[in-house]
Amino acid sequence: MIILKIGGGKSLNIQAIIKDLAAIYEPVIIVHGANALRDELAEKLGYEKKIITSVKGYNSVYTDDKGIDIMMMAYSGLKNKRIVELCRQNGINAVGLTGLDGGVVAGKRNAGIRVKDSGKLKMIRDNSGKPCGINTGLLNLLLSNGYTPVLTVPISDENGKAINSENDDVVALLQKEINADKIIQLIEEAGYLADKDSPESVIKNLTPKELQQIEEKSEGRMKRKIHALNKLFESGSPAVYIADGRIEKPVTNALNGGGTTIK
Amino acid sequence: MIILKIGGGKSLNIQAIIKDLAAIYEPVIIVHGANALRDELAEKLGYEKKIITSVKGYNSVYTDDKGIDIMMMAYSGLKNKRIVELCRQNGINAVGLTGLDGGVVAGKRNAGIRVKDSGKLKMIRDNSGKPCGINTGLLNLLLSNGYTPVLTVPISDENGKAINSENDDVVALLQKEINADKIIQLIEEAGYLADKDSPESVIKNLTPKELQQIEEKSEGRMKRKIHALNKLFESGSPAVYIADGRIEKPVTNALNGGGTTIK
Repeated sequence: MIILKIGGGKSLNIQAIIKDLAAIYEPVIIVHGANALRDELAEKLGYEKKIITSVKGYNSVYTDDKGIDIMMMAYSGLKNKRIVELCRQNGINAVGLTGLDGGVVAGKRNAGIRVKDSGKLKMIRDNSGKPCGINTGLLNLLLSNGYTPVLTVPISDENGKAINSENDDVVALLQKEINADKIIQLIEEAGYLADKDSPESVIKNLTPKELQQIEEKSEGRMKRKIHALNKLFESGSPAVYIADGRIEKPVTNALNGGGTTIK
Repeated sequence: MIILKIGGGKSLNIQAIIKDLAAIYEPVIIVHGANALRDELAEKLGYEKKIITSVKGYNSVYTDDKGIDIMMMAYSGLKNKRIVELCRQNGINAVGLTGLDGGVVAGKRNAGIRVKDSGKLKMIRDNSGKPCGINTGLLNLLLSNGYTPVLTVPISDENGKAINSENDDVVALLQKEINADKIIQLIEEAGYLADKDSPESVIKNLTPKELQQIEEKSEGRMKRKIHALNKLFESGSPAVYIADGRIEKPVTNALNGGGTTIK
């Protein structure tokens, strides 16, 4: 079983990814992003990203209902359906899903951010949260009948409302439940970089232990991403491939160790 | 088994429809439109509907790739996922699908329209067509496992490419394959009107034979819609309800004969 995560960057070669994937005869669950598409759509619609600052000074993106609307259009609509279309044209019988569909990804809404409003402290909660449960029943039902799930956000909160979530966290929880032997993450770099400003600094091999040491030294968004990667090794011992999604044969390249292999 | 078709008009009360549907314990397939939402999005994105005129003088909407993108955002993205969200909040375990997903609705691309271009005759083909096959396997798989399919366009052409299609035709083909005993169509009128300009002129009861006579006397888009209705009676003898989707308890109202009942 393979979990294939396709990033949401603009320069990923989705055509090449799906064509290459079709040559591999193994069950797969695809998880994809669409952040470049979402940002582009938001801009065209004149929707401005709202940033709120907590009393402790941290900035966060505030996802309101309109933000979820745009996410649904970009992720669950355009990107998801174009990937499903491509899959089927290449012989992969794909079924697109968001976390909402059949409750595939249940989540928990974030508690909120403490802000100061006209001198008064108050909590602001937006439409974002963390995944906490996977409906493996539906995924296995589809997989065992020859369908390939193509999964994206939003996910569902505890009241069934659509919320935003990090795809990295969805993949980590999915792996805990599904226990894939291979996890491929296709990104807009040649692999995991020792120096983020040097595209040539790809680390070819890492052990889960080395990855933990990297997490300890990381900060901010990168720390969160590495943390999600580390979670992949909490149950079972999969091989994780982080590789270039912009090239021809990106899946084959990843599996052949062309990017970063962690195991 | 019920097929519930929800129109794509702006004034339909989706909340009331889903809440009311949840009180009925019968398997259901939902088919929905989103034309008002699509038009609104197209306008916001500055996308103008392209009309082409055939050599015979007929006008048609030309759906290009961008038109399919917008359809995917409005129908498969925003509208479909908000309906799935509402369903699940009301205890209906919905799974949203387009005709592309698992090849649920296979179609055939229209042959094209003959136009004159710089004095030369040529055929123009756009991304539209007619449904010609239903993957009942996937629908039954979902239904028999307690999931409610929520279906919308696009559908897939013979090469797996996304095409636009009339939801009326999808419902007619679905009925041929699924043989539901009840088909409910919720619209922005109180029922089928004897006089389209008089909202009070609802015909309470029709027989399939009377409906055929109406088709013979109709013209244009209305003729196509009545033709699709007539097709519902080609196999089996379902009860068809055309009723108001703007009110409280629209499903109960339809089943109680509050709109037009055809059987």
